[in-house]
Amino acid sequence: MDKRPIGVFDSGLGGLTVARAIMDALPHESIVYFGDTARCPYGPRDQGEVRRFVLEIGSWLAAHDVKLLVVACNTATAAGLALAQRAFDVPVLGVIEPGARAAVQATTNHSVGVIGTVGTVESGSYSTAVRALDAGVTVYSIPTPKFVDVVEAGLRMGPGTLEDWLAECSDVVIRSSFYELARDYLDPLKRNDIDTLILGCTHFPLLSAAIGQVMGPRVTLISSAEETAREVAETLDRRDQRARSGQPQHSFATTGDSREFIRFGSRVLRRPIVRVEHVDIADLPDVDSLLAFARGPGTEDDSCA
Amino acid sequence: MDKRPIGVFDSGLGGLTVARAIMDALPHESIVYFGDTARCPYGPRDQGEVRRFVLEIGSWLAAHDVKLLVVACNTATAAGLALAQRAFDVPVLGVIEPGARAAVQATTNHSVGVIGTVGTVESGSYSTAVRALDAGVTVYSIPTPKFVDVVEAGLRMGPGTLEDWLAECSDVVIRSSFYELARDYLDPLKRNDIDTLILGCTHFPLLSAAIGQVMGPRVTLISSAEETAREVAETLDRRDQRARSGQPQHSFATTGDSREFIRFGSRVLRRPIVRVEHVDIADLPDVDSLLAFARGPGTEDDSCA
Repeated sequence: MDKRPIGVFDSGLGGLTVARAIMDALPHESIVYFGDTARCPYGPRDQGEVRRFVLEIGSWLAAHDVKLLVVACNTATAAGLALAQRAFDVPVLGVIEPGARAAVQATTNHSVGVIGTVGTVESGSYSTAVRALDAGVTVYSIPTPKFVDVVEAGLRMGPGTLEDWLAECSDVVIRSSFYELARDYLDPLKRNDIDTLILGCTHFPLLSAAIGQVMGPRVTLISSAEETAREVAETLDRRDQRARSGQPQHSFATTGDSREFIRFGSRVLRRPIVRVEHVDIADLPDVDSLLAFARGPGTEDDSCA
Repeated sequence: MDKRPIGVFDSGLGGLTVARAIMDALPHESIVYFGDTARCPYGPRDQGEVRRFVLEIGSWLAAHDVKLLVVACNTATAAGLALAQRAFDVPVLGVIEPGARAAVQATTNHSVGVIGTVGTVESGSYSTAVRALDAGVTVYSIPTPKFVDVVEAGLRMGPGTLEDWLAECSDVVIRSSFYELARDYLDPLKRNDIDTLILGCTHFPLLSAAIGQVMGPRVTLISSAEETAREVAETLDRRDQRARSGQPQHSFATTGDSREFIRFGSRVLRRPIVRVEHVDIADLPDVDSLLAFARGPGTEDDSCA
């Protein structure tokens, strides 16, 4: 047993769906969550810039003595997971491989859909991960960036649940109701007869009820959040590091506005967030040496035959 | 629940370690096992030839209405898994990815060893699989072909367990005791300070006690057999296909000598094998059309954005 916390980070609030899934699956684990809201969204940014952010925040979390790191953001996973795995001493998990694995296990007609940000879809990370696991599966990918806008707008609306709000969201987002938008986005996937859909953005589990309604009951929705939580549990069990008793201590940090984080983050986490530390971007660890190390030699495969 | 059997195949008897692990983990599942002993070993064969064998036996098992196929042979997985996944309608699992995944979860010093046949090590499949999951892990691979000879010789020796036999095997195999052989093979891995060792051949779980003794207690041994069984369970659960009650009906087939299969196979399976069907190689399904299909178009990723 290892009582150190799990570090979870995202460009903003979306990764709180992953934190929530970890809290549900591992109720005794403490989490240190870092939301880089001041630099959110990562999607349109240069990959090299995102990689630097991943190392900065990973270093900040490593300094908080985490036993495992979760990159709870698809864009950051696609851009920086491998680099973070080389840079840090603790295991670093992303959200893409667990979702891909679940989809491969679930599909019976070998047709899997992926929705995500433009950056995530263009990276091809899900296609690569799915096909490495099962070369017989065809992956249909669609960028659905406006779904992120819907969630962001929904979180800032009244006190009801996101689902309540979605039912009445006509004219709020691009003068179309969410369901019209969703049908426009998802129709090509339905025409391709997918039976499994990966929600390839940490915001999207918040829309799963609505997306499920549009896709119909025969399509299995894969939440990367839940699958990543399962992977975290398996990794901790394998290393005999799972916390099995005691009250967890969660803490939160943001580069943005703490009050906004508390207000909207609590809705995503579905638990009250009482205190959020503000971290100035200028105070994040310097990662020049880490960047050099992670790109350096000594990590190649070696044969000692 | 789906009462159809699971198909498991190997070039010979080694895959029975995987069948055994599946029987232990999923006690209500029926297994149809196919051992291609007449063409064993696959290791030194041309990859194209092995791929054809995989399709032939996969087709034979598919005709026996299996709900899932396990390629319980590292050489066949490296050569033919992707092709089989494209060719067959049911999920096809190999033994490499589950072992790689377990090793990534287990290692704390980012140093993993792999032992296997020359073919498996030269394919680089484990290195690729490990590093796709964790780019920070260094993989040290060593071909240990004589371990296969040891197991084969051991199975044909007296009635005791393989471990009993190993304790007295001086001068039996290449005039060296198994322990000397093992030390010669494994010393480079020990020098590289690996903390996790993948037993990358289905024969090797039979040697795990002895290998563990040579490597020492601080090295975690990963049996692909157990990890593959876990992956089978997860896949069946995800698809709601796990058999949860009833007495399983196992059946066995071989291209080689049935009596030999019964005699030596029972020792690997640690369960009595009563009847083995002999299948003539000439009677295996023709796979020319499957080879053409599996290589054909229509399996590439598609973007419908």
